[in-house]
Amino acid sequence: MQFKISKELLSQIEQLIHQKNDQELEILLNDMHHADIAEIFDELEIDEAIYIFKILDSEITAEILTELEEDVREKILHGLSAKEIAEELDELDTDDAADIIAELSQSKKEEVISELEDVEHAKDIVDLLRYDEDTAGGLMGKELVKVNENWNVLTCVKEMRIQAENVTRVHSIYVVDDEGRLKGRLSLKDLLTTSTKTPISQVYIKKVDYVKVNTPNTEVARIMQKYDLEAIPVVDEMGRLVGRVTIDDIVDVIKEEADKDYQLAAGISQDVEADDSILELTKARLPWLVLALFGGFISVTLLEGFQSAMTKYGELFFFTPLIAAMAGNVGVQSSAIIVQGLANHSISGSIINRLLKETSLSLLNGLILASLLFSGSHFLLGVDIKIGVIITVALISVIIMASLIGTSIPLILNKFGIDPALATGPFITTSNDIFGILIYFSIAKLVLGF
Amino acid sequence: MQFKISKELLSQIEQLIHQKNDQELEILLNDMHHADIAEIFDELEIDEAIYIFKILDSEITAEILTELEEDVREKILHGLSAKEIAEELDELDTDDAADIIAELSQSKKEEVISELEDVEHAKDIVDLLRYDEDTAGGLMGKELVKVNENWNVLTCVKEMRIQAENVTRVHSIYVVDDEGRLKGRLSLKDLLTTSTKTPISQVYIKKVDYVKVNTPNTEVARIMQKYDLEAIPVVDEMGRLVGRVTIDDIVDVIKEEADKDYQLAAGISQDVEADDSILELTKARLPWLVLALFGGFISVTLLEGFQSAMTKYGELFFFTPLIAAMAGNVGVQSSAIIVQGLANHSISGSIINRLLKETSLSLLNGLILASLLFSGSHFLLGVDIKIGVIITVALISVIIMASLIGTSIPLILNKFGIDPALATGPFITTSNDIFGILIYFSIAKLVLGF
Repeated sequence: MQFKISKELLSQIEQLIHQKNDQELEILLNDMHHADIAEIFDELEIDEAIYIFKILDSEITAEILTELEEDVREKILHGLSAKEIAEELDELDTDDAADIIAELSQSKKEEVISELEDVEHAKDIVDLLRYDEDTAGGLMGKELVKVNENWNVLTCVKEMRIQAENVTRVHSIYVVDDEGRLKGRLSLKDLLTTSTKTPISQVYIKKVDYVKVNTPNTEVARIMQKYDLEAIPVVDEMGRLVGRVTIDDIVDVIKEEADKDYQLAAGISQDVEADDSILELTKARLPWLVLALFGGFISVTLLEGFQSAMTKYGELFFFTPLIAAMAGNVGVQSSAIIVQGLANHSISGSIINRLLKETSLSLLNGLILASLLFSGSHFLLGVDIKIGVIITVALISVIIMASLIGTSIPLILNKFGIDPALATGPFITTSNDIFGILIYFSIAKLVLGF
Repeated sequence: MQFKISKELLSQIEQLIHQKNDQELEILLNDMHHADIAEIFDELEIDEAIYIFKILDSEITAEILTELEEDVREKILHGLSAKEIAEELDELDTDDAADIIAELSQSKKEEVISELEDVEHAKDIVDLLRYDEDTAGGLMGKELVKVNENWNVLTCVKEMRIQAENVTRVHSIYVVDDEGRLKGRLSLKDLLTTSTKTPISQVYIKKVDYVKVNTPNTEVARIMQKYDLEAIPVVDEMGRLVGRVTIDDIVDVIKEEADKDYQLAAGISQDVEADDSILELTKARLPWLVLALFGGFISVTLLEGFQSAMTKYGELFFFTPLIAAMAGNVGVQSSAIIVQGLANHSISGSIINRLLKETSLSLLNGLILASLLFSGSHFLLGVDIKIGVIITVALISVIIMASLIGTSIPLILNKFGIDPALATGPFITTSNDIFGILIYFSIAKLVLGF
């Protein structure tokens, strides 16, 4: 079952397209999973992809659309009429359809919506467009199975069978009152194993986890992970059941959050991929480099201020990159542990305790590294003992300072509701470079008096 | 439904424990979700946690066990007899039970297994212990619903009801032949909407995704994500159905992988958390710092080699931290994009094309940054034009070099089957510091001839 695109497969498909051999193409592709075809699309020329798109069933192409890379999807949608797009969306679940519509221009959006055949479906999609994409409302789909608490099991099973036709995966059957307010749930398993004569009100489980339409998507992800849920109902401000979020959407949220934190730690400020355009990649990378450059200016100015040391103690300057690098590395380590702890909700205790712990940790690391530095500089590099003591003391101080900055800045940002991941990567390395150099030369000046 | 531990709740619970008021404790805790109680346990003293553990039902405590932080679980298991642990495990799904047993010492493991009441359950658990924890076999549970292809739907529904009693969530009904080999699947929805008189062989879907027991867990995660699966059957070397992996296990794999890459990028070499002991944190952080220190020694030696520049062109040394920092930042950006692309399987094209793209990207970034550096150093810092040209040319060269190193090292590691994430963070910054300084002073020496 392991699918892998081979060069042979790609060139076979391209050949069939150029021969306009639709029949062979259909035979070849109909056997494939839509996610695999989407992978092939990402590799083809856009004209070729559109050619295939038009000969396949809209049942398959609709699913392919949801799997494509955003830029490829944009190009394909550009090659389709509003009516053709509407045909695709009619095949999709409301949440996927709404996500695709949201990517269209305002005028095309309205055209496409007016072309949707299934009016109920169209209403649901339009409804979903209202919600912020980073909330439960933006994640949810309208497809769910709900029954009234006043029904008996027989009516319920009948209604359920009708509703289940439109729902790809039935996770739970939600129970609502006459006003549509969420009251509880029934599991499919319970229905399978319970006598059909029982009244609903007697069998349903009154305890049901739910989120509100405006709950942030990261919070939805946290709740679903913590309570091991595969779907969670979403209610509006009045407690009425309006949708449900499924675990596959949450997997995407978790991945995106992790990717974003990773990129911030590496000094990339936007969600980019290796295959994005050079301009997009530059836009994501340049701001942090400019920040680092200005940090560099500050370190140059600082070093100029200690110029007087150069004639007698020139070798001090040989150690600046080492001191700066250690400060940067320690700072990144400290901040990364805090950022990850905050993201996983696994940080307990006060800021003071955290800083105390970090101080003892960095003191331990600092002492080990300082003894390595002292012996290394003295025996390997032949550095004078006095200078050796200075760089050793400086290293310990710099490591402690760097870890305190690395620990406290993300905690402080988090307190003020700012994403702590911003305080990793270039931000921390640059500020720690500066402080590191300042501390190092101040200690040297104090001891040597230049 | 938003649960949050408050100080009041914790002190209320602690008070009830000290008063030995078991009745009130039970009332208070019975209403809570086991994941919430686990959170409370993480905050309590271990004696208090064990006290509560012993008054709650094993149905709840078993679930609590699976949710606890590893170190807290270890301590609680230490406070229980083999018989008591076995009682907990009897309540759990086989995969969770096997995970907990795997954490016990060899002698306790055997004792606990011999105390398990349900022999079938015990067999399944022992069977699961055979598999490497990083494979599909290590992730899977034995709980699944399977029917024989030769049955008719009536037998099937009856059998299914019996089997479903032991399965928390029924995702699919798997169809096997007389030898137990996986042949296909039936969806619960199909069963709900199909007449009960149809023979199984006519209704089941022959196309079924599966993985083998030795498929790596990251590959299982990739497949389940790509094909949007909530469960996937696992077969042995003979194609016999032996278990199934569910999406909640995969969510954990995805999180762990992302966390690990993040930590490596930040120079943390083991899976640690902010709340781990100082010794564990040191063990995870020190190796990278030692690496950076030795890199620092090399940069000191390099700079010593250019000592002759100091008398006439001392200000060159003021710019070393700036050049080194830029090299480090660019390298981390480049490597992070590649590492993430490799992890998400979104990298296409040859290494050569990738390097060409990265060269043009860094040339663009380099030119922008170099013009900032040139004007900044000349107008703000009053640097001589000749020196300004040298540092500007050096910056562009260093940025291109750093991005090529950052791009190629993870790609090369990946080619040789080594985790490319190793080549981010301190590894890249340290090597780029060294190359950056070397290039910078070589250019300076070439132009100025010191």
